[in-house]
Amino acid sequence: MNRRDEAMAYQPHYFSEVRKAQANAYAPYSNFKVGAYLRTKDGKAYYGGNVENAAYPMAICAERSSLVAAIADGYRPGDFESITVTVDADEPSSPCGACRQVMKELCDDEMPVYMTNHKGDMTELSVGELLPLGFSGKDLN
Amino acid sequence: MNRRDEAMAYQPHYFSEVRKAQANAYAPYSNFKVGAYLRTKDGKAYYGGNVENAAYPMAICAERSSLVAAIADGYRPGDFESITVTVDADEPSSPCGACRQVMKELCDDEMPVYMTNHKGDMTELSVGELLPLGFSGKDLN
Amino acid sequence: MNRRDEAMAYQPHYFSEVRKAQANAYAPYSNFKVGAYLRTKDGKAYYGGNVENAAYPMAICAERSSLVAAIADGYRPGDFESITVTVDADEPSSPCGACRQVMKELCDDEMPVYMTNHKGDMTELSVGELLPLGFSGKDLN
Amino acid sequence: MNRRDEAMAYQPHYFSEVRKAQANAYAPYSNFKVGAYLRTKDGKAYYGGNVENAAYPMAICAERSSLVAAIADGYRPGDFESITVTVDADEPSSPCGACRQVMKELCDDEMPVYMTNHKGDMTELSVGELLPLGFSGKDLN
Repeated sequence: MNRRDEAMAYQPHYFSEVRKAQANAYAPYSNFKVGAYLRTKDGKAYYGGNVENAAYPMAICAERSSLVAAIADGYRPGDFESITVTVDADEPSSPCGACRQVMKELCDDEMPVYMTNHKGDMTELSVGELLPLGFSGKDLN
Repeated sequence: MNRRDEAMAYQPHYFSEVRKAQANAYAPYSNFKVGAYLRTKDGKAYYGGNVENAAYPMAICAERSSLVAAIADGYRPGDFESITVTVDADEPSSPCGACRQVMKELCDDEMPVYMTNHKGDMTELSVGELLPLGFSGKDLN
Repeated sequence: MNRRDEAMAYQPHYFSEVRKAQANAYAPYSNFKVGAYLRTKDGKAYYGGNVENAAYPMAICAERSSLVAAIADGYRPGDFESITVTVDADEPSSPCGACRQVMKELCDDEMPVYMTNHKGDMTELSVGELLPLGFSGKDLN
Repeated sequence: MNRRDEAMAYQPHYFSEVRKAQANAYAPYSNFKVGAYLRTKDGKAYYGGNVENAAYPMAICAERSSLVAAIADGYRPGDFESITVTVDADEPSSPCGACRQVMKELCDDEMPVYMTNHKGDMTELSVGELLPLGFSGKDLN
């Protein structure tokens, strides 16, 4: 399921873009800045950074920040091509569970999630792989 | 504290803009679309709509959506002039508690929050009025 | 609106109980432990501590922890008499916006919220005072 | 990875208990009641139901409700044996992403999550299987 090894062989997708997104993160409590770069199928891009809060539960992640910006612009579920995430850490960090759930709602199960770090390492999994048996609107009916 | 009566006397601020923001909300579970229109002190604007999720707790409100988009663009706490919110309801709805907390982190206590509805009614309170004795980074030290 | 001065004159309500609740908080990221002690109108008590997460937005506050435990035990909105909160800080900290919103849903507007710190200082506000013009189920109709 | 078929062959673990937990859920907005039953390694049990809010993002899930109640009682990460979840749906629903993230923080990766529905169907996955490459405290360092 982990395609880390093959992934490492090629240049991370949208690496310079996602590093720019990370620069605008607001993370004064954790000092752990995260950046996200979302591509739509018709070629538009949305940037996101994590936005922390003194009340920790009210923090909003980089991935969700980029996704809600696209929705506000009129994009709908299924319109997204890929998302790239970046952190400064020894290993590329994966999206938190809440971001995976928001991707499940808004993105195709096959959409690739490119996880990178400052060294240019990359791991790739799809939305469906990140949230196996994911809860969705179908479960509510 | 409620300045509803005076507020009603004048035309809601940024009313046509916030109604445009509302149009892009994604609210298939509640069918309650919310729009937010955020102005920066240097005159830029960010639109937000609520983005719901089959897993209800992962919904993100319109107000927070507009704020994180501005942060992703490089704006910082204190850079915001006002936020206008709109709903389709008999009375203008106020921001939820989580949005008030995010405003507390990112906006001046004196920043006005203009709450409107589809009929053009408006209520105005400041961020500090919406979250009295609000929890902030100072409380963590 | 702030009744801090009168409040200081009397012994904090349920102070020893809420300090016990705080002792079980799980706060390895902020090192800011919060305790909550919830009383039902029929005299039962529920303890809560904040439960943090490496993914900061998934933290759950002490106040909400005590409230959901009571709901799981069968208590319903309107069954609650008071909540006491405590922190280790120079000033008693107030509940975050999300906790105020959950109180709005589950507690009477007049229910007192006793905010304390390790020194025994106390500030008291009601749920309605903490979330003026609070968003509620009525706004959805 | 999905052990649904084998799982169906045996009686769901703690089925009557988790159905009792579900009965106390507070879900007036979705009418989708969820129950959770958490077992500690030393044999104690915690019940949880989802607790919804007019402001949808402030809802709290059944799984997290049971986990924070255990933490408030003094249990720590690693003290948990299993969690059983139940819904009224054609298929057993899985935990949302946020609950998976909280399990990642508090439970062993090998801990079984038993997902059931009102018909007694059961699917079993471990915490690690539900959140592949899960984000954790190690990623923050």
